[in-house]
Amino acid sequence: MSSPVINKFVVIGIGLIGGSLATGLKKRGACREVIGIARSEQTCVDAVNLGVVDRAYTSLQSVASELTAGDVIFISVPTLSVKAVLADIKTHVSADVTITDGASVKGNVQTAAQEVYGEVPAQFILGHPIAGSEKSGVTAANPDLYENHRCILTPLATTSAVHLNLVTRIWQAVGAEVLTMTVEDHDEVLGATSHLPHVIAYSLVDTLAHDIDNPNIFRYAAGGFRDFTRIASSDPIMWHDIMRANKTGVLHALDLFIANLTRLRTSIEIEDSQYMLDVFTRAKNVRDEFTANLAKPHVVSTHVISKSEAKKD
Amino acid sequence: MSSPVINKFVVIGIGLIGGSLATGLKKRGACREVIGIARSEQTCVDAVNLGVVDRAYTSLQSVASELTAGDVIFISVPTLSVKAVLADIKTHVSADVTITDGASVKGNVQTAAQEVYGEVPAQFILGHPIAGSEKSGVTAANPDLYENHRCILTPLATTSAVHLNLVTRIWQAVGAEVLTMTVEDHDEVLGATSHLPHVIAYSLVDTLAHDIDNPNIFRYAAGGFRDFTRIASSDPIMWHDIMRANKTGVLHALDLFIANLTRLRTSIEIEDSQYMLDVFTRAKNVRDEFTANLAKPHVVSTHVISKSEAKKD
Repeated sequence: MSSPVINKFVVIGIGLIGGSLATGLKKRGACREVIGIARSEQTCVDAVNLGVVDRAYTSLQSVASELTAGDVIFISVPTLSVKAVLADIKTHVSADVTITDGASVKGNVQTAAQEVYGEVPAQFILGHPIAGSEKSGVTAANPDLYENHRCILTPLATTSAVHLNLVTRIWQAVGAEVLTMTVEDHDEVLGATSHLPHVIAYSLVDTLAHDIDNPNIFRYAAGGFRDFTRIASSDPIMWHDIMRANKTGVLHALDLFIANLTRLRTSIEIEDSQYMLDVFTRAKNVRDEFTANLAKPHVVSTHVISKSEAKKD
Repeated sequence: MSSPVINKFVVIGIGLIGGSLATGLKKRGACREVIGIARSEQTCVDAVNLGVVDRAYTSLQSVASELTAGDVIFISVPTLSVKAVLADIKTHVSADVTITDGASVKGNVQTAAQEVYGEVPAQFILGHPIAGSEKSGVTAANPDLYENHRCILTPLATTSAVHLNLVTRIWQAVGAEVLTMTVEDHDEVLGATSHLPHVIAYSLVDTLAHDIDNPNIFRYAAGGFRDFTRIASSDPIMWHDIMRANKTGVLHALDLFIANLTRLRTSIEIEDSQYMLDVFTRAKNVRDEFTANLAKPHVVSTHVISKSEAKKD
């Protein structure tokens, strides 16, 4: 890379998501300096020792006065802690510094920013990289985590194109494809395709472990079961926060799922073969089409919206 | 391999399961001859051309009179077709030929054999290899499909140890670990760890495709969603048959799951954080333990039951 994309990159919360972006930017020489902020002193020490960041502090105040236009703060703390971090940023950070986040739910971050700032400030770009792992913590940080993954940004009417462009370039620097959508669409789509599957996976494993009276229940489970339940190994606190933050989106998707599953249950009970075959065949066709599309090169082009477009939103 | 395990191996139904065992035995020189039976002439032609079997016929009668003690018939047709195949075998095949099957449900195969033969004959070993793929058909046949997978046999009081030993050696020849359990345990365990996840995966994909009103619902789904829904690409007819065949086991597991999921839904609605955290943490711990055990060398030894043990069952 000929010249760094940005000057200073500050990551608040050095876990899987924040640590991976930090170390990914470092590896690609995309920033002059990568600074980490973590509540735990041990995490700060680990992050520096692992080479995830150049330096680290337990408080944003330690670096806030250094930051100016062209620097970027990335908030990657658990969803429900974003508001407290924003309040800290508002107090200590200049209004020309770019701010973005990686929380899995966007509606509650928008609300938090409105509550802290009055309205979502032009410098704050809400974002969500669609990548992850059932692993967590700074030791799980992976510089290539975002390579060939999508990152969704949800610009608002108040969003500045300058800040939006900078955040877009950061994600592109680590190999992600950047897409934009509305906050509402984001939370509905992710509620259905990510949050709902996590609820289901956690509940399935819990059912098998605690409600079914057979000590051998997992002993004969096969590889398909391992794949199906992989997401049940995800971080419980993070997912608790997501369920709280996207309560409306999750309940909407969950109610549709329980209704569909209950109809399918009835068809099994009354031996309605046609109904079962219809559901299974529809699902197989849709899922086969989905994976065929995933295998193709992305046809969705990166759409960096201009300031005038952003203002229309 | 110094000498073949068996003389003639006949596979009835040359799809993924039967074709993989046939071609796996051929590859390892475990049989003197592998013969395929399929309803469709094209499947017979394909199976020979692909080297899955040595010769193939559209009817069992074409080879039944050749078969004697030491030969093995493997029934790998859709679950609900097993009874008709058993009736055909009873009419044409000698009582000293070993018979086994690979159907995913054992209770209904036991019932089918009782209805055809009066009681399950000593020559018939009910079995189920715990391996598969979302692919199907003779072209999906894979000689290494069973390598390091488990095969469950469910011997009965009427089972002959001679036949049980022969079937055990066949599965071991293709690299499978052979375990025994009761028919009832098999159907409960598989109902919970395999059949229930398939019901859920089909229903989830169907919900997203047809009940949620967002044309972009799959466009932003990530890799985790692909893994979670892989089993929804499985063969609809096969899985319809399994739901019919293991109706009791599936409904039992499904009712426990729906009850657990509904309690979890309520906790999201009333924001009962402790309940959510308890479920997510329990599930993560159990699932992490399960995968840690999967990664270890199998501690369960192969248990080939003796005739006296079999008779006790």
